[in-house]
Amino acid sequence: MFNRIDHVGIAVEDIESALPLYRDAFGMDVAHREIVSEQGVEAVLLDVGENHVELLAPLGPDTPVGRFLAKKGPGLHHVAYQVSDIDTALQALKDAGLELIDEQPRVGIRDSRVAFLHPKGTGSVLTEIVEPAVAH
Amino acid sequence: MFNRIDHVGIAVEDIESALPLYRDAFGMDVAHREIVSEQGVEAVLLDVGENHVELLAPLGPDTPVGRFLAKKGPGLHHVAYQVSDIDTALQALKDAGLELIDEQPRVGIRDSRVAFLHPKGTGSVLTEIVEPAVAH
Repeated sequence: MFNRIDHVGIAVEDIESALPLYRDAFGMDVAHREIVSEQGVEAVLLDVGENHVELLAPLGPDTPVGRFLAKKGPGLHHVAYQVSDIDTALQALKDAGLELIDEQPRVGIRDSRVAFLHPKGTGSVLTEIVEPAVAH
Repeated sequence: MFNRIDHVGIAVEDIESALPLYRDAFGMDVAHREIVSEQGVEAVLLDVGENHVELLAPLGPDTPVGRFLAKKGPGLHHVAYQVSDIDTALQALKDAGLELIDEQPRVGIRDSRVAFLHPKGTGSVLTEIVEPAVAH
């Protein structure tokens, strides 16, 4: 069902402080940077072969990533798997009995279509599925 | 420096309870299963395209994964990046000023060579680099 790991999401206090490690020490190219207001985050995608690291910094404390940081501190936040057809994948996951955060795909970073599964059903791993925009 | 995300490591209480989600609901093939006594874990690798999910269950409470579970509960444990030459990569990371848990590569799962970076220098993300065995 999943083509590959699309990205690993990492919660950081602040993008500028986190970037040098990934861009300079790890040598990853910055592929995209976007403020996603409705999710309350600034996000940066870095390339690792066909996979990505997604750095996530909260736009304020009362946002999902802001609350995550307050509770757990910075670190691994979620894993995202890439699918070719998110509607079919989401239906299959629903049929398998998984609890969804997003019953319908919504628009994610870089015009992708995304949906999150509830960590209750995934051993406390916040899990996302992603159908990239055609251009990516 | 990194070819791809090699795997995402996920801490679980018990392999048998965790496997159905990844194998059956997510449809990932089990590529390998191994008890790594010196690390105190039972590990299962599942295929996601060229990437993997690595499920990690502790062999007892007084092991690194056992202590992780006691402190944080199950969930995302580490991210591993694949390299072609771990000696060169490790030297480059050392030169970049990163603190290493493993100053020298050691043997990991499926005869890979691996080394961990200290989460102190990586925004609290336990980060591993992996040079797969030639056969993989």
